[in-house]
Amino acid sequence: MTTIMPSTLDTTRAFFEPALREAVARLDPWSHRVAAYHLGWCDESGQPTPGQSGKAIRPMMVLLAAQAAGGLAGSAVPGAVAVELVHNFSLLHDDLLDRDVQRRHRRTVWAVWGEASAILTGDALLALAHEILLEAPAPTAGRAAWLLAAATRELARGQVADLAFETRADVGLGECLDMAAAKTASLLSTSAGIGAVLVGAPEETVDALLRFGREVGLAFQLVDDVLGVWGDPAVTGKPVHSDLRSRKKSLPVTYAASRPDCPPELTDWLAGTGEPALESLPGIADLLDKVGARAWALAEAARRMELAEEALTGVDLQQHARGALLALAHFVVERDR
Amino acid sequence: MTTIMPSTLDTTRAFFEPALREAVARLDPWSHRVAAYHLGWCDESGQPTPGQSGKAIRPMMVLLAAQAAGGLAGSAVPGAVAVELVHNFSLLHDDLLDRDVQRRHRRTVWAVWGEASAILTGDALLALAHEILLEAPAPTAGRAAWLLAAATRELARGQVADLAFETRADVGLGECLDMAAAKTASLLSTSAGIGAVLVGAPEETVDALLRFGREVGLAFQLVDDVLGVWGDPAVTGKPVHSDLRSRKKSLPVTYAASRPDCPPELTDWLAGTGEPALESLPGIADLLDKVGARAWALAEAARRMELAEEALTGVDLQQHARGALLALAHFVVERDR
Repeated sequence: MTTIMPSTLDTTRAFFEPALREAVARLDPWSHRVAAYHLGWCDESGQPTPGQSGKAIRPMMVLLAAQAAGGLAGSAVPGAVAVELVHNFSLLHDDLLDRDVQRRHRRTVWAVWGEASAILTGDALLALAHEILLEAPAPTAGRAAWLLAAATRELARGQVADLAFETRADVGLGECLDMAAAKTASLLSTSAGIGAVLVGAPEETVDALLRFGREVGLAFQLVDDVLGVWGDPAVTGKPVHSDLRSRKKSLPVTYAASRPDCPPELTDWLAGTGEPALESLPGIADLLDKVGARAWALAEAARRMELAEEALTGVDLQQHARGALLALAHFVVERDR
Repeated sequence: MTTIMPSTLDTTRAFFEPALREAVARLDPWSHRVAAYHLGWCDESGQPTPGQSGKAIRPMMVLLAAQAAGGLAGSAVPGAVAVELVHNFSLLHDDLLDRDVQRRHRRTVWAVWGEASAILTGDALLALAHEILLEAPAPTAGRAAWLLAAATRELARGQVADLAFETRADVGLGECLDMAAAKTASLLSTSAGIGAVLVGAPEETVDALLRFGREVGLAFQLVDDVLGVWGDPAVTGKPVHSDLRSRKKSLPVTYAASRPDCPPELTDWLAGTGEPALESLPGIADLLDKVGARAWALAEAARRMELAEEALTGVDLQQHARGALLALAHFVVERDR
C-alpha cells in the first residue's frame, strides 16, 4: 500500500507548498531565514537546498479529509498551511527543550543560532498559522482555528508530561498513552478535523475524521516507540537502541514496567538514572521482548489502525479520498523507508 | 487625571478577572500553577497571594474601547482575557530571553522553575488566548483573533530586533521607533481595536481605536525609556540609571546617537561594550540631557498623546467611555506612582 504514497505526496506538496512558502515569506527577514532553514528550503548560509522538504503528513491529512468530506482540497489549503506551521512551531521549541542537536540529518535551529531564534521563530510560526487559517474564506474558519488552538495546548501539555517523565520512575501506562495522545495524536487528529470543518462538513463527519486522526496518531507513536528500541539504524537513521540510551519512558517500556511478571533486573534497570552502559542495552531489549512489550505495542498499533478504519465507516465520505486517507494512515504508521 | 484611575481599574478588574481565572483554570495542573504564580495569584509554593494582580491595562483598553464604540463591555470580556493572556505569554518568553530574574519584585518563572516552564506555559497561554477569543459569541470573533495573531507576530518581531540591537552599535532612531511600535505599541493598539471589533463597530471606528492604542503605546515607551535613564529608583523600583547599566539602545539614547552634535565622549560610550563603570553613568546621563535626548523624548511622548486624542475625534464614540479611554492613556503614560 505504501508504494502508492510517494506520488500522492508529490501531488499534495505541489498543491500546498507554494502556499506555505507564501505564508512564511510574511515573516520578518530574520525569522523568515530561520524558518526557511528549519523547513529545509535553504542551508545555514541561506543558500537554497532544493528537494529537502518534510513529508507534509499533516497537510495531506487536511487536504484528503476535505476531499473525503465532499469538498475541494483547494478550500482547505489554509488549513494545510496552518497545521504545518503549528507542527514546526512545536519542533522548534521541543528541539530546544530536549537539547536535540540534529533533525533530519541537519543541525537544529537552536544549535545553529541559539535559543532566541528557536523560541521567537516558533512563536511567530504559531501566530502566523492563526493568521493564515482565519483568512480562509470559509464561514467555519473560526471553528477550525479554535480546533488548532486546542491542539496546540495539547502539544504543550504533552511536552510538559514528557519532560516530567524524565525524572520519574513511576510512569504508568495510562499516563504514557495520554502523553502520546497529547503530543502526537492531537495534531494529526485536528488536521483531519480541520479539513472537514473548512469544507462545511456535518458534525458527525468532523467527529469521525477527528477520531480517525487520533487513532492513526496513536498507532504511529506505538510503532515509533518500537523502532526506538528495536529499530534497524539503517531504517530509522538513529543509533541502535536509541530510546534505551536516553532511558525514554516510551510506550513499550512503560508497558513492561506495568506487568506483574516484569523481571527484577528489568525493573531495576528501568528505575535507574544516568547514561546506561551501552553493553547492557541488547540484554534490556531482549528482556523487554520477553515480557511481551514489542508484541503488545505492535498489536496495539494494529488495533488502533482498525479503530481508525472503523471511524471512517458509517459516515458519508467520498470513496476515492477515503481510500487515500487510509493509504496515508498506513504510510504514516508503516514507514518502511 | 490619574487619581480617577485606581477606582476604574478596580471596577474593570472585578469585571474581567473572574473570566481570566476561569480561562487559566483550563490549563493542565502544572501550567496552571506556573501561570497562577506568574500572574501574581499565588507564591512559589502555590499559596494564594491576594491583591497581587497586574494592572490589566490591556484588558481595560479592550473593555473601554467596546463601550466607546457603543457596545457593552460584557461582550468584549473574551477579548480582554485574550489580550492579557498574550501579554503574559510574551512576558514569560521575554524574561527568559532577557535573563531577567525579577518582575514586580518577584522571581521570574524561568528563574524559579527553568526554561521549559517559561516556554511551554507561554505557548499554552498563547493558544488559550485564541480558544477564549474564538468562543466569543460575536460574529466578528474571527476578525478579532486575526488581529491578535498579527499583534503576536509583531511582539516576536520586536523582540528579535531588541535582541539584535544589543550587539549592534549603529542602531538608527527609525528602527528603534519601529522596534518600540512592534514590541510595545502593537498589543495596546490591538487591544483597543479588538474591543471595537467584538461589538461590531464600523471599520472607521476600529481604525481610530487602533491608531489611538498605537500612539498611546509609543508615548508609553518614550516615557518608560526616559525613566530608564533619569528615573527616581523610589518611583521606578529599578536601580538608578538602569538602562545605562545594561547599555540599552533605548529611544533617547538612539536619538542622541543620531544627532550631528553628539559629543565624541558620548559617541564613544554609546559604541562601547561590556558592563560600564558605575561612576561614569551620571556623566553620561548629563551628556544625554545636554544633547536634548530627554527633552526630545518627552516632547515626542506629548506629541503622541495629542495624536492619540486626535485619533478619537471625528468618529462617533460614546462620550463617557471616550473620556475614560483618555484617562487610561494618561494613567499608562504618566505613571507617577
